[in-house]
Amino acid sequence: MTAPFHIGMLLYPDLTQLDLTGPAQVLSRAPGVQMHYVWKTIEPIPSDAGLSLMPNRTFKDCPQLDLICVPGGAGQTALMSDDETLAFLRTQGASAKYVTSVCSGSLLLGAAGLLTGYKSACHWMYREFLPAFGAIPVNARVVKDRNRISGGGVTAGIDFAFTVVAEIWGEETAKTIQLFLEYNPQPPFNSGSPETAGPEMVAKVKKQLEAFTSARGKLINDVAARQKAAAS
Amino acid sequence: MTAPFHIGMLLYPDLTQLDLTGPAQVLSRAPGVQMHYVWKTIEPIPSDAGLSLMPNRTFKDCPQLDLICVPGGAGQTALMSDDETLAFLRTQGASAKYVTSVCSGSLLLGAAGLLTGYKSACHWMYREFLPAFGAIPVNARVVKDRNRISGGGVTAGIDFAFTVVAEIWGEETAKTIQLFLEYNPQPPFNSGSPETAGPEMVAKVKKQLEAFTSARGKLINDVAARQKAAAS
Repeated sequence: MTAPFHIGMLLYPDLTQLDLTGPAQVLSRAPGVQMHYVWKTIEPIPSDAGLSLMPNRTFKDCPQLDLICVPGGAGQTALMSDDETLAFLRTQGASAKYVTSVCSGSLLLGAAGLLTGYKSACHWMYREFLPAFGAIPVNARVVKDRNRISGGGVTAGIDFAFTVVAEIWGEETAKTIQLFLEYNPQPPFNSGSPETAGPEMVAKVKKQLEAFTSARGKLINDVAARQKAAAS
Repeated sequence: MTAPFHIGMLLYPDLTQLDLTGPAQVLSRAPGVQMHYVWKTIEPIPSDAGLSLMPNRTFKDCPQLDLICVPGGAGQTALMSDDETLAFLRTQGASAKYVTSVCSGSLLLGAAGLLTGYKSACHWMYREFLPAFGAIPVNARVVKDRNRISGGGVTAGIDFAFTVVAEIWGEETAKTIQLFLEYNPQPPFNSGSPETAGPEMVAKVKKQLEAFTSARGKLINDVAARQKAAAS
């Protein structure tokens, strides 16, 4: 592998910041990597956690990436019908060695037409939307299908990134970074998946996001219908 | 508890970004929280991962915090002898309900004199430096001693934050956030602690950071000596 290895992470307003910052922490420690945080402008980008993140590349001045990673978050919804973002993803995705996502980022890859016929992970709450884009949803922390690699919801991005490092740089490198980052998780509770959280809590969380999920679903149907019309 | 609950996270050049962004993701989801990302200025702060983060408060315009959290990272070393930062931590720490840290952030709390007689966690590689500041090192993912709560290296900040949420807002709130963030970690490898990584890898990582660790240790001894002289 020739250095630098260009990794690009999409930044956008109201992303879930850990979707991006978790994998960025792991991937940036791999040898010969150059990290690009890419958006339309290089102005500060507000995230969901009240913390703004700084892009260091615009779509226009971003080199061809070896790996592109799309994080998720509430702001992802608007981008599924944003031509400029979709064009950037399509162009980069066509030549990137790896096309990857974390959380609901997979829906944005889907909207760009990059997941047709591919297995993919997604946040548990939005996984059901993947088939609208011709993708095959998989209930797993990390999913690999040819050169598509995806992580599930938010914190799955960390497991995703270690999988990516092992795939590209080998297991020894991944393990060394794991020791540096002391990635020896010990969640104090066990409600990190719908299966372990139980039906009551799942119902509560779904109810809290009902309006948001319904709006996202509606937009996905519209975008998918336009995709099909354009393809026929 | 009265809202807003003011959480302040220290930002500084060359911090390990996940030390801050991991806990920020979890804590910002707690009810009634106001997040403050605090540094001397509100200019972009370069992190170790090539990603710059934006402070939204300066030391001067930061309100009294209910919880202060100090992340770690290479840039922590210089701050241990930086009077402006230490004064900010001392002033806030004197009245905050919780004084907390992630990774080598505990050494900065120590340099500010805020850990004397307290048990604390730290990144496994730097834990041995805590006693210079009168702190009691504990080999644990999360350590609580009265109103001091600390996380171990980097990713331990996520476990730390769930512990904090449960402590302040209760277990049900912590579990709900855990489900939102799908915190159901499945590390693909098992080398996230010195105990599981084995002696060879530990030796390799220590060797890689030998010069840095030695310089950090030297500075800690100097700062601790000045602390003792000032106290006597």
